[in-house]
Amino acid sequence: MDILVVGSVAFDSVETPFGKAEEVLGGSATYFSVAASYFAKLGIVAVVGDDFPEEHVKMLNYRNISTDGLQTVEGGKTFRWKGRYDFDLNVAHTLDTQLNVFSDFKPELPEEYRDVEYLFLANIDPELQMEVLNQVKGPRLIACDTMNFWIEGKQDKLRELLKGVELFVINEGEARELAGEASLIKAARKIFEMGPKTLIVKRGEYGALMFSGDHIFSAPAYPLEDIFDPTGAGDCFAGGLMGYLAKTGDLSDANVRKAIIYGSTMASFNVEAFSLERLKRLTVSEIDERYAEFKRLTHFEDV
Amino acid sequence: MDILVVGSVAFDSVETPFGKAEEVLGGSATYFSVAASYFAKLGIVAVVGDDFPEEHVKMLNYRNISTDGLQTVEGGKTFRWKGRYDFDLNVAHTLDTQLNVFSDFKPELPEEYRDVEYLFLANIDPELQMEVLNQVKGPRLIACDTMNFWIEGKQDKLRELLKGVELFVINEGEARELAGEASLIKAARKIFEMGPKTLIVKRGEYGALMFSGDHIFSAPAYPLEDIFDPTGAGDCFAGGLMGYLAKTGDLSDANVRKAIIYGSTMASFNVEAFSLERLKRLTVSEIDERYAEFKRLTHFEDV
Repeated sequence: MDILVVGSVAFDSVETPFGKAEEVLGGSATYFSVAASYFAKLGIVAVVGDDFPEEHVKMLNYRNISTDGLQTVEGGKTFRWKGRYDFDLNVAHTLDTQLNVFSDFKPELPEEYRDVEYLFLANIDPELQMEVLNQVKGPRLIACDTMNFWIEGKQDKLRELLKGVELFVINEGEARELAGEASLIKAARKIFEMGPKTLIVKRGEYGALMFSGDHIFSAPAYPLEDIFDPTGAGDCFAGGLMGYLAKTGDLSDANVRKAIIYGSTMASFNVEAFSLERLKRLTVSEIDERYAEFKRLTHFEDV
Repeated sequence: MDILVVGSVAFDSVETPFGKAEEVLGGSATYFSVAASYFAKLGIVAVVGDDFPEEHVKMLNYRNISTDGLQTVEGGKTFRWKGRYDFDLNVAHTLDTQLNVFSDFKPELPEEYRDVEYLFLANIDPELQMEVLNQVKGPRLIACDTMNFWIEGKQDKLRELLKGVELFVINEGEARELAGEASLIKAARKIFEMGPKTLIVKRGEYGALMFSGDHIFSAPAYPLEDIFDPTGAGDCFAGGLMGYLAKTGDLSDANVRKAIIYGSTMASFNVEAFSLERLKRLTVSEIDERYAEFKRLTHFEDV
């Protein structure tokens, strides 16, 4: 196993200008792991209720994702999220969140998970992220995501966690909110003081910015004719990114840039359909082709 | 003279989170021509009142910008714009617009202006843009900007004009509004049907997208610690773009990409200070340096 991810596994109900989906497979750990599975082997730490169908577990296993760390609570209900997107697809309007089995979740890592080299703490309660972090032995790279809900509700726990995080991947508005800075460059500097050495700021349809020391890398998003459902795009971005880093084992600035483009590639596929419909049936040549399109999209002169 | 520009010459009063400026030099033709003047020789077609100080004319002439086409109306007042930016510096809130001498302006091109190779119709009433277009003989490239005000108030005149325009440079929201399409790719396709062969969509701090046939080029904006005053950034972008095209005489897709980066370079300098304070005292090595930084900012792998 190359990458361990803790995060949510959920049923999503989503409405976009293009249609709606009811109780479909979602969750930060799910999107992350399926995206990363095209590059590396994964293990997932999460919890579901006994309403979680076997076919979803089979899909994950089929994609080489270990579910030994996925607990099932008998008589419990799986986490549910309900949201709506208007024409500004950068903004998710949360209509309902039911933590269900996540409210009492105590992550317990299977022994073989503890030696993992790449750890991703996907968006979930920072206390759960911390419990997983405390159970791994000495990963080569610790990366983390979060959301405004935790920045507002559990910022002390989040800041404690960040002391041990090297690579931090969050949305633009969240970076500004956490740092209390309108300027992203200033926000990055403040976030570096909290622990992370590299900050990747996700900007939805505008791409991503990586801040690392004094260096900045700007990656576009892939221009799509229609964005069908943006749910999970940020998790797929992180999945492609971590997957490529784990596959290559190269954490240099130059390679993180490529990893960001692979992340953007995976995110761009994901938004083409509801749930994991597009993502789970990708081919490697589709991924390589879109990566090459990113080169053509941004190229203006060789360095 | 390489480039002819028609547009506004104005006094701006601007408030941003960083300060305010009263009745400072502004206007689309002013910003455009000063930005382009680092690459090519320009002539300006516009009108001012007798309240327009000689020092501004001298500054333009010092930058090799011909003001033979700049009419002065005795007893008239120069165009005035008053606006405010909040923390979202992508949105200008117009507080007051006084067209003044522009309400009766009849552009009359000096004979030596009519043979110009590169024509830029900066943001101004599309009827004035049309009158200038009708007086030039056969320019190599006709490019144009506009704004939501004309899209809403004079769309028929604007559409008539666009039939003769090759390169169209507008804001993201304006492209969507003109085409009546939320998807930029679909909007570009509809705008191609109106006349232009190339569409450049300005996205403020998110950079620019070029649509040309089936090709898309994505350019970032230069990440600045603080954006002091965004007024004129779009005009400076167009100025750098047209200036570089006129300087090189190369209208290939590959060269337009470079020109867009020069445009972004000029826009990034402009927003560092009020009015043209930063722009008018740039050096060529500062421009080259920032252009090189754009390469480092976007580079992830050679094509």
